[in-house]
Amino acid sequence: MIIVGSGAVHLKDELLNFGAEVGEIEISRFPDGEKYVRVPLCGTEATVVQSTYKPQDENLIEALLIGDALRERGFEKLKLVVPYLAYSRQDRVTKEGEPISVRAVMRTLGLYYDELYVVDIHNPKTLDFFPGKAFNVSPARSIADYFGDKLGEGIVLSPDKGALSRARKVAEELGVEYSHFEKRRISPTQVEMRPVEIDVSGKNVLIVDDIISTGGTMIRAAEILRKLGARKIFVGVTHGVFAEGAVEKVSNAVDELAVTNTIPTPVSKISVVPEIIRVL
Amino acid sequence: MIIVGSGAVHLKDELLNFGAEVGEIEISRFPDGEKYVRVPLCGTEATVVQSTYKPQDENLIEALLIGDALRERGFEKLKLVVPYLAYSRQDRVTKEGEPISVRAVMRTLGLYYDELYVVDIHNPKTLDFFPGKAFNVSPARSIADYFGDKLGEGIVLSPDKGALSRARKVAEELGVEYSHFEKRRISPTQVEMRPVEIDVSGKNVLIVDDIISTGGTMIRAAEILRKLGARKIFVGVTHGVFAEGAVEKVSNAVDELAVTNTIPTPVSKISVVPEIIRVL
Repeated sequence: MIIVGSGAVHLKDELLNFGAEVGEIEISRFPDGEKYVRVPLCGTEATVVQSTYKPQDENLIEALLIGDALRERGFEKLKLVVPYLAYSRQDRVTKEGEPISVRAVMRTLGLYYDELYVVDIHNPKTLDFFPGKAFNVSPARSIADYFGDKLGEGIVLSPDKGALSRARKVAEELGVEYSHFEKRRISPTQVEMRPVEIDVSGKNVLIVDDIISTGGTMIRAAEILRKLGARKIFVGVTHGVFAEGAVEKVSNAVDELAVTNTIPTPVSKISVVPEIIRVL
Repeated sequence: MIIVGSGAVHLKDELLNFGAEVGEIEISRFPDGEKYVRVPLCGTEATVVQSTYKPQDENLIEALLIGDALRERGFEKLKLVVPYLAYSRQDRVTKEGEPISVRAVMRTLGLYYDELYVVDIHNPKTLDFFPGKAFNVSPARSIADYFGDKLGEGIVLSPDKGALSRARKVAEELGVEYSHFEKRRISPTQVEMRPVEIDVSGKNVLIVDDIISTGGTMIRAAEILRKLGARKIFVGVTHGVFAEGAVEKVSNAVDELAVTNTIPTPVSKISVVPEIIRVL
């Protein structure tokens, strides 16, 4: 039994197509703005699918209300699948006085859910903040499937060393080479960004990452790859948290931009539903 | 040490006037809409003041982020003062499948706060959902102070029996009579509303309640009191959760409408800061 929250309604039809049993839920709002949910279901185990992109806080609170309603109905085991987890980048204190916001989110969700599945979480270590069992769901196979034929014998790159494991997973699905960009200071004011120990000339390149927002990094990376003689340049990112105008800017800078549907965007051409179905 | 959240900034100056030590806090937003807070303070005990009217969910999440930041800084005891608590009316299941939303809110706040103080909570029993110590803060004295001279030897009424204790507390502060309205079915389609066992003719009347939204009840009550020969009619409510146009409609129907400043509104003429200071 799957319950789909407001943040994941765009995935509902596809979940049904995969044969998932999707339970009835009523979601509305009181005149003062408070969320109202009703989940008139019976059972002992359920999986709630709720993405928490903008409005993040409303989607988070909704997940709690759904959890409370299911516990009230006597459900004993609740799983939560979060295609996009809000606050996942606020994962450390960089300036004194900051919270570890993703910790607050994890603890809160842990009040109602026994297991948590997050698609491509920014920092997998933060899953430890969840009191129950928590898992990262990699979209590597879906991204590989989407770009495989276009990439051919190309190269998969991550924009920095921290994201290298994402590039590796996609490359391993396709049996191609992979590497990452690195930043090198070439003068007191200039930083150069280049792919490490790999020759991109004459090759197609797929740059993968977990989140794209302004797209600045991707645009810079594409410029460098063009200079180095790369053929086609593709960008395949999990979460399209696009800033105003970013979809157009990145699309113009590369041969193709595609993100997954953890957040619905005009370029959410890759579905993570197969991955979600796999973990249910 | 007091920390004031976004939902309570309208109380900050008055808190300072009462001599409270208000700590520095930074609150902003990332381009994608996520809240950012920073509380660069040192200490072991702090009180956070955060009201949770619209946008309710953002104000709730902000309270958690502030709590997480303070715990990260090593604070050992945290109190939370909530002038207006969102979801407080969703305190029971009226239709199967509903959550007890206020329970979800209480449990969530309990992750970071040891003590909770809520001004005039809709249903005091719901305080039991908070894992730590939780208290109701009555605004009766402030309401009594504001209306005392205007009311004179008048009467305090609540719109129903459930709110009678609110009328009693205000009346006791003023040493005047009190009662409540009751609804009586006078035909299959008509319900009559009248004050119980009290004569209002020639008297000033103050109607008190915890929440006013559309104001429909107050307007009907005022009409009945006029018919029964009441002199001046005052409405003194704690939380002004006004629907569109309600301030004007109620103001036109009575001699004076005043609410407290748990929520900032054009008629928030009564301050609860003295009550908040009292419990700190």
